[in-house]
Order: sequence, then C-alpha cells, then structure tokens
Amino acid sequence: MSTERTEINALGEFGLIDHLTQNNETRNASTILSVGDDAAVLDHFGKQIVVTSDMLVEGIHFDLMYTPLKHLGYKSVIVNLSDVYAMNATPTQITLNIAFSNRFSLEAMDEFYEGVYAACERYGVDLVGGDTTSSQKGFVISITAIGEVNQDKFVKRSTAKKGDLLCVSGFLGGAFLGLTILEREKRIFAETGAQPDLENQAYIVGRLLKPEARKDIVEFFAEKEIMPTSMIDVSDGLSSEALHICKQSNLGCVIYEDKIPIHEDARQFAYTLELDPTACALSGGEDYELLFTLSQTDYDKIVLNEQISVIGYMTEAEEGTHILTRGGNKHKLVAQGWNHMNHSQQ
Amino acid sequence: MSTERTEINALGEFGLIDHLTQNNETRNASTILSVGDDAAVLDHFGKQIVVTSDMLVEGIHFDLMYTPLKHLGYKSVIVNLSDVYAMNATPTQITLNIAFSNRFSLEAMDEFYEGVYAACERYGVDLVGGDTTSSQKGFVISITAIGEVNQDKFVKRSTAKKGDLLCVSGFLGGAFLGLTILEREKRIFAETGAQPDLENQAYIVGRLLKPEARKDIVEFFAEKEIMPTSMIDVSDGLSSEALHICKQSNLGCVIYEDKIPIHEDARQFAYTLELDPTACALSGGEDYELLFTLSQTDYDKIVLNEQISVIGYMTEAEEGTHILTRGGNKHKLVAQGWNHMNHSQQ
Repeated sequence: MSTERTEINALGEFGLIDHLTQNNETRNASTILSVGDDAAVLDHFGKQIVVTSDMLVEGIHFDLMYTPLKHLGYKSVIVNLSDVYAMNATPTQITLNIAFSNRFSLEAMDEFYEGVYAACERYGVDLVGGDTTSSQKGFVISITAIGEVNQDKFVKRSTAKKGDLLCVSGFLGGAFLGLTILEREKRIFAETGAQPDLENQAYIVGRLLKPEARKDIVEFFAEKEIMPTSMIDVSDGLSSEALHICKQSNLGCVIYEDKIPIHEDARQFAYTLELDPTACALSGGEDYELLFTLSQTDYDKIVLNEQISVIGYMTEAEEGTHILTRGGNKHKLVAQGWNHMNHSQQ
Repeated sequence: MSTERTEINALGEFGLIDHLTQNNETRNASTILSVGDDAAVLDHFGKQIVVTSDMLVEGIHFDLMYTPLKHLGYKSVIVNLSDVYAMNATPTQITLNIAFSNRFSLEAMDEFYEGVYAACERYGVDLVGGDTTSSQKGFVISITAIGEVNQDKFVKRSTAKKGDLLCVSGFLGGAFLGLTILEREKRIFAETGAQPDLENQAYIVGRLLKPEARKDIVEFFAEKEIMPTSMIDVSDGLSSEALHICKQSNLGCVIYEDKIPIHEDARQFAYTLELDPTACALSGGEDYELLFTLSQTDYDKIVLNEQISVIGYMTEAEEGTHILTRGGNKHKLVAQGWNHMNHSQQ
C-alpha cells in the first residue's frame, strides 16, 4: 500500500467520485451516458440484456490482512462478470457501490479503483455509475453487472436434459487451497510474527486473490456455434453448483472423480496439508470456472479444447446425484462448501 | 416488529433467497428471466435503458431505532426509482443486495422485503435479482434500478439553457424536519425514557420515513409533451442540486425565496424549533422531489399543475448562483446540506 495518506473528507463525496472516475473510459457503443448524472443510459439495439449483482463484505468475503486492495477491486468485478458469462452473455457495463470507514485513505481507494479499472479494461466493460458512502465499520462492495446476449441465446440453469454431458472449464479447488495457505500464514504471523512463506504457492494464491472470468469459453461457444443446455459459474464449489443445475433442471447426475480437473500445484499442496484434492474441488469455492451441460452431439466440438473437461453426465432425477470415486465407490453429492453465510455464523 | 424470531441460518443462504422471493411477481414484458439464475435477462426492444445504483448503510443513512424495517425497504427502492425518474425514464427492474448481521431475524427480513415489494408493486417494477450475505455489523442495502426511456428522450443535468425556468415538484424541507423531530425524540427517550411525542407531525415524519418518487411528474411530462432541458432529483437539498445543474450546464441561477414550496406543517414545525424553513429546504435533503429546467415557451403547459413550482431561472455562469430573499437581499447559494459523508465524519 502507498505510504501517503489523504483523508477522504478533504474531498467530500462529490469530489471523491470525481477523483475516482476521472480516468474512466467508455468502451461500449451501448453506453450512451455514463458516470455523472442520476443514472447511466444504455442502448442495446434490440439485444437482450442480462443483469446480475453481488456484494462483498469485509470479514465475510475477504480479509484485508492478506488481500491487496488492487486485487480486491479486480476480483469484485470478476465475480460479477463471471455471472454474466454464465448466462452465455457478454458483459458491457457495471455499477459500483462502496461503503468504507474512515480508516481508509484516498490512496487506499485509488488502489481499489485501479483494480476495478484493470478488470474493466481487460474485459471491455464500462463503469457507468455508482455510489460511495461511509460505513461505521469495514468495507462493503456491491457491484451490478450488465451484459448483452443475442436474442434467446442466454443459457439458464434449468434447461439441462437427461443424457447431456456435464462439463467444466479450467481447474477446480485452487482458490480454496489458496485461502487455506493464506489463513495458515496469517495464524502463524499472529502467533510468531514470522513472515508468510508462500514460496511455490503462486498458483493457488493467485487463484484466490486474482481470479479471472471465463470470457474465452463463451467466445469459444460462439465461434463453434455451441449452445450449452445449461450453465452456472462455480463460486460455491462443484457440488453446490452441480446440485443447482440438477435441482433446477429436475435431473440427477453422475460425476467421475478421476475426471475432475485439478491443477498439479493444487494437488501437491493439498497432499502437503493432508487434504483430499477432490474434496477441495467439490466443496471449495471461488474458482469462477463455468460448469455447463452439453448435448452429446456437441462432444466433437469440445473434445480438442484443453480448457474443457467432461466430468460426468445428467440422469433422471430418481437416480440421484452422485460421484463415482477412483476406488469404484458411489457417494451422494453434498453441498457443504463455501457458504459464506454459514461460514460466518459458525 | 413481529415478536417471532427465526434464526436466518436455519434456512441457509439459498433457502433465505427462496423464502424472500417466493411471492415475487413479474410485471414488465421486458423481464424475460428473473430471480433464480446467475443473472436476470431483460429485453428492451430498442428502447434506451437507464441504470442507477445507491447504497444505504445503517448508522449513516438510517437509524433502526426509529425506522420501521418495512418503511426502510420501501424507501430503499424509492431513492433509486427517484434517480430513474430524474432521467425522464420509467423504472422497470431492480436488483437488491443486502448484508446484515445475525442480530436480524427472518421475521425482520420479511418486514424489510414487505416494504421492498410494496414499492415494486406501487411503481410497477420487477425485483430481478440480488444477493443476501452476512455482515460483521449493521445492515447495508445496495439497490440497482433499471428503467427505460424512448430513444433520446432521457434528460441530463448538463443541458439547461440560459433563461430557462427553474422548477421543482412538491414541497421541500419536510424530510429534514422529520429527521430533526425523530432525532429529538430519540434523545429525549435516551435521557428520560419518555415515549416519542409525534402528535401532529405525521406529515414531516412521513416525508422522511416513507418518501415517494415523482412518477406522476414524469407521466405529466409525457402527456403534455414536455421535455425538461435538465433534471435532477432532490436528495441532498435544493442548494446542492441547483448547483449541480448550474455546474454541469455551465450556467448560473437565481432562486426566489418566496417561491420555494414549503408545506404548511413543515413551516409551522420549523418555527416551533426556531429553524428557518427556507434553510431546511435549501440544505435539508431526502425530499426526493424533481428539480428541473424548462424552456420559457413551456410555461403555459405547467402553470396549472399545482405540483410544480417555478422557483427561479437560469443565468450566465458569470452571474453566479443566488437566492433572492423575501427581504430583497441576495445571497450566494451554498451546498452545505445533507452530505452523508461529511455528516458521519463530523
């Protein structure tokens, strides 16, 4: 963090918004009017638009002890864009509301916004409005993302069909392991004052602190003319998300343990901690990969994409929701992961 | 508040969302897909859409000591709809994010949502998504409102012209006086245990706790084919909003003190407290009226509408921003009111 410190109230609320949005650029033709009025104006020329909104709360969703504010700004945008991609849509605008106590300086806010703008730039999204306010305690971030999708090309959670392939992008479980190591090092620091030892853990720490949204997968679908039959982003762990698709599509599923994609670095670190890598993928969250179902006839279109793994298939609801282990055992899928609400109330 | 108490964690996050949205209705044809997926899907058939977002924080924007949760839910929606109307647009959807500590029960959340739904119903708006999460302390509400407007009929703050009439809807200053009496009664209660004496103050207390957005004014504009040359909603006091229009339009203005509309009940209560009613209108906020400028040629179209007051006119920027008092004095307009950020940091 920068060593300068400017008190926010030296600027006032409007001065702060002016300051934080002075380098804000407009990238989308659909952004007719951006920050600086009562509302932004968008024109989607007959395309359908998607809207999603998420809130991140200090002490619940992030710990500023080991989360750089720039990364937090970046991630706050990513978690919302991920929901837009999970609709098979392209994000175009966001609004950003933040509440923060007076322990935050202007320099701290600048770092946070730097991350927000970096994500906006990378994903071609416009920041079109929002609100900054004070809080009595802590930092609260609320983002709404808007995206567009061609007429009736959006993909819901509820439209998977029996026999469809269950697929996931990238690798799972890494973010949970990143959280585990950061929490461990925080504890050690509190007890002994020892500096964090994160050597060789860049992959898993990066998965937690600087996730990406799977723009590439949605672009791949468009290029190959693939319409997933259902889709959801993996924010609460594979089990929880697979169960959402099953419940909302009124189906069951089978997942093969040996097909679940886990990065080698994540697997090694899990073994070091005597954790089961599969459990990390099933119940750890915040991977922001896409979980989707495909008609079997689309298999040829995805087989060469190394970013996509087929991990199972959809069944009748009566057959239940199961994972088949390497050892040949069949377990019921349980959503036990990453429920921020339960987590915080434990 | 209801006397029952169900702990939120008896439901879990998804159970809570299901519970809170079970009676959610869809009112707009543009709402293609609502709560229950990664994002909502909207289709605006070539109309332009407006987006606005606001955050309300316990202890900063509201005090639960004297704010019933149902009113708070209602008002949280209203403050966002007011921004949509201030663009000359019609609100169609909202997303709602809330964070709250475990001191809130399910019954408390139900009351809050009752107010949210009441506002949605009254204004014909669909709740299409959002997030519920826990907070370490207090209650934080973040709402994004989306509205639609005919091609290029949106009204900005920056397009007032010299000589335009400066107009405002309804009455000003009431909400500030409502806050003043509630804060007074809270203090008395803390000191003496005396029950609040709000007799005869229904008007000003209602202005604070249950404001309305000026849907009727925007509908009147459409009916009479009036296009305001600029518009803003009055959330921070008349001075602050008039200065926004002046600054963004690069103009000055003159406001006549005797033209500022102040309700008789508000005026009487101000006198009781030895407050200047004009100062309450200029610097008190949260009235959620519309402040707008009109071409002089439109004067005939509004003169018979008792909900609209002409309070001044726009001048060259060089002439400054002034108020002409009843006594014939000329004062510079100062934005000193209702800045939540300054307020909380005093």
